[in-house]
Amino acid sequence: MKTLEVRSSKRNQMIDITSLIQKEISELGIRDAICILYVPHTTAGITINEGADPAVVEDILEKLSELVPYTRTYHHLEGNADSHIKSTLVGCSVAVLIEGGRLQLGTWQRIFFCEFDGPRRRKVYMGISPVEA
Amino acid sequence: MKTLEVRSSKRNQMIDITSLIQKEISELGIRDAICILYVPHTTAGITINEGADPAVVEDILEKLSELVPYTRTYHHLEGNADSHIKSTLVGCSVAVLIEGGRLQLGTWQRIFFCEFDGPRRRKVYMGISPVEA
Amino acid sequence: MKTLEVRSSKRNQMIDITSLIQKEISELGIRDAICILYVPHTTAGITINEGADPAVVEDILEKLSELVPYTRTYHHLEGNADSHIKSTLVGCSVAVLIEGGRLQLGTWQRIFFCEFDGPRRRKVYMGISPVEA
Repeated sequence: MKTLEVRSSKRNQMIDITSLIQKEISELGIRDAICILYVPHTTAGITINEGADPAVVEDILEKLSELVPYTRTYHHLEGNADSHIKSTLVGCSVAVLIEGGRLQLGTWQRIFFCEFDGPRRRKVYMGISPVEA
Repeated sequence: MKTLEVRSSKRNQMIDITSLIQKEISELGIRDAICILYVPHTTAGITINEGADPAVVEDILEKLSELVPYTRTYHHLEGNADSHIKSTLVGCSVAVLIEGGRLQLGTWQRIFFCEFDGPRRRKVYMGISPVEA
Repeated sequence: MKTLEVRSSKRNQMIDITSLIQKEISELGIRDAICILYVPHTTAGITINEGADPAVVEDILEKLSELVPYTRTYHHLEGNADSHIKSTLVGCSVAVLIEGGRLQLGTWQRIFFCEFDGPRRRKVYMGISPVEA
């Protein structure tokens, strides 16, 4: 298991961590495998979406904040109930296939760490599982 | 593959199953692996979120019911269309890493079975995949 | 890794791909394993839900379009910002257990490719990871 470090600079932010993960995979010399990415936080998430046009990320974050507003109307009194709810809607783990040493992402796909209660220092765990011959 | 049993007591409920899963892992003597948890139901889900303050779970369930109300306005006539929709929003599987025999959860993370059409007897499947050296 | 082909015929559509996946598993002679299904697109997703009553799928798609309407009010100017947002809400990968050569789905569960910007030709990647004895 490897631990990657991510630093966010805003309360809500999607940070492209694709290169970071690909670099780890290359350094570990992994060829064909399944890569599990796991966020050990309750006010963050991980998703895969378009990275070419930054407006897509902006739209995702705005829609999430529209559906789950940042208000004081929740039961949880720490002021970040919205962040917890977003974490469950987006999810805290993804699986990506690796073939020939490369993450098998689609043409437009990038892997994003989703910060919902930043700015903070965050972690992403990476686990590599073999694939059957 | 192991099958865990969960019993819910409310229509909407998040049940902390972390100890149940850790117990299975310990009994199986698993050290380093990837744990896949899978809910074989279409009106339930599984998520990882904060367990310290029960208000967080309350906020998640209330927001889900606000976004997807329990009404008779759906096409599905069994009265639980809302439960099915929540299941797709939350998801029915998660992956968690295991290291040194312990689930590698974050400080505040607990694993929750999400009941959206209880009370019922439910199941969670657990599959263990090896990690590459 | 296997690549499956899916063809959608509507803008929003959930296509039952369970038989397609089971067929691949049977042909590959896989007995006990974990199956990772991955959608390499940013305007599509994958989910597991009820397949018996087609009204369930209809309700899921309608609720998603109600929460994330198909309008021109987004920052992303290609007219499919809603599709990207739905992709993140639903997710682009699922894990299913295989035992004795069969996908271990619940009684009512079917695996659905979720098209949010069709009609198009789409792909689903399948990766098979061994399970520990």
